[in-house]
Parts: sequence; C-alpha cells; structure tokens
Amino acid sequence: MLFIEPIGLVHTHFSKEEITRSLNGVNGVIEIYNEFRDGLKAIDEFSHLIVIAFLDRVTKEQRKVLKVRFRRLQKLGISLNKLPEVGVFCSDSPHRPNPIALSIVKLVERKGRMLHIEELDLLDKTPVLDLKPYTPDRVIYKIQLPTWYKKVEKEVIKTTGIQNPKL
Amino acid sequence: MLFIEPIGLVHTHFSKEEITRSLNGVNGVIEIYNEFRDGLKAIDEFSHLIVIAFLDRVTKEQRKVLKVRFRRLQKLGISLNKLPEVGVFCSDSPHRPNPIALSIVKLVERKGRMLHIEELDLLDKTPVLDLKPYTPDRVIYKIQLPTWYKKVEKEVIKTTGIQNPKL
Repeated sequence: MLFIEPIGLVHTHFSKEEITRSLNGVNGVIEIYNEFRDGLKAIDEFSHLIVIAFLDRVTKEQRKVLKVRFRRLQKLGISLNKLPEVGVFCSDSPHRPNPIALSIVKLVERKGRMLHIEELDLLDKTPVLDLKPYTPDRVIYKIQLPTWYKKVEKEVIKTTGIQNPKL
Repeated sequence: MLFIEPIGLVHTHFSKEEITRSLNGVNGVIEIYNEFRDGLKAIDEFSHLIVIAFLDRVTKEQRKVLKVRFRRLQKLGISLNKLPEVGVFCSDSPHRPNPIALSIVKLVERKGRMLHIEELDLLDKTPVLDLKPYTPDRVIYKIQLPTWYKKVEKEVIKTTGIQNPKL
C-alpha cells in the first residue's frame, strides 16, 4: 500500500446527475489545502490544468471491474449494441482497480488557494491528489486509434453532432 | 490515507542517468499484473497511452518540496539564473507532495500482459497505478502559458534547437 494523501478538494454546486449529463463539464472550485499553498506559486497564467483526483465514491465491488462498455453514451442516444466491451484501461470509466481520475480543466481565476475552474467533470468533495500544468508537450498530434474506437466516435458524432467527443 | 495498489511495473534496461538525460525518453516494457490483464482487452491499436505511476524512490524529505526550479534544464546548457522559482504544481518535478507521475508513452506492441513502450521517462521497477488511452479529447489546441514559462521555453529552443521541448 502506498502513502498518498489529498492535497485539496473539489467544490461544485452541480449534482452528480448534472455532471454526468454535461458534455463540457461544469464550473467549480479546487481548494488546495493551506499547507500546500506555496505549490501554486506562478500557476495563475496557465489556461489549463491536469487534475489527478481520487474517486472516493467508487465501491470495492466497482474496483473489480476490468471490462466495460461506454454506457454513458447511451444517454446521448447510442444503443448498447453499438458499444463494444473493452478493457477498463481503454476507457476513462471511474470503475477501475485504482479509481484515479485524470481531468483536464480550464483555470479561470486563482484567488489565493482557491482555483476557479471550468470544464470540471469531478463530483463535489472529490479529494485531489495532484495538479500539473497542461503544457505543449502534452499535445500529441499524431495519434492512432483502434478501429472500434473510431466506429464509436463516428456514431457519437452522427447522433449528437458533437465534434471531437469525449467517449 | 487512500487505498491504492500497483496494477503493474515498469521494466527498462536504461539507467536513471540515461533516462534523465534523454530528451524523448527510452524503450521499456510495462508489465500488467495477471489479475488485471483483462483490463487490457482491445488496447492494442492505441498509439499512445497515459501512464499514472508512483515514483517510489522519492523520499519523505523530497515530498515536502513546494517550490522548484527546472534544474534538469541546466543539463541542456540553461544557466540557473534563467530558471525562475515556481510552485511545484506548475511543474512535472518528481519532488512533490504525492509523487505521482503522468507519462505519455508510445505503445509499440502488446504481447499478452506486456506492453512494449517507447518515449518512457520512468525508472526501472516503478510501480504503475493506472493506464488510460490517449484519446483526441486530451488534445487541447488553444492553451495559454505564463510569461515565465514562454521565456524558459524560448531559452531552451535557442540553446538546444529542440522544438516543443518538455521543460
């Protein structure tokens, strides 16, 4: 077992249902605990941050899940038979052995140790483990995707009209 | 304290010195433990993966560091006075409260539960906590960077000729 402790906490007024349904995430605040506040020095001008968070509402049973379908997409109108079963490491499903989230958020304003955020997909009171800047070296232009992924992506674009959707 | 356990392990023949000095990372293998192997189903055709790893050689003292300079860049010929002191959450420094790494690697081949990787910047025997696919929604085209970051970036490009350097 590894010694990892939260450095902060997510705050948002939006409900789980609203966050799950939203396509571009919601507004919120990331509070960094006072003892880690010096770690924020000079972060203000980054437009995007990467938040590593611990999804503490995932149960022991849900952590045993190894194969998933992108069921969330059913809410967008995609039928289940168009969603192949894939390994959890091909997905962002919160139901995974270590329920660690990687969220790319927009930094709108910093007020002391409070980071005002847009495009947040984390629930209220989610513990934050780390923050990293979204820098140009994170942008990979030449990515290749599996055939099954491109098929699902196409289906989502066709059904919803959203370009560059998050599956 | 949160319950997080490794799902796998990094293997590489390269030394710490070689990995630190390399600009595009090194070759290696990510071994996923047998009990999590089903989580790899259909991962083969992704060209890039995001590896969340626990930097287990970081000491308790190093975890107290909150302000850093990009000292690694001195090895590329940048003088220390050109490297401003910034908060650790503006950096990828391994010396941080939770020594969690986010590495974007190239998936070359999967052999069972062994993922053959390029562009790896993790040390041999580093525990892996999670794997996620690098999908198009991770690509943020319109990022803004702090003035201090752009200055350092310019200096690195001028000194080394590397375009889009990782600071």
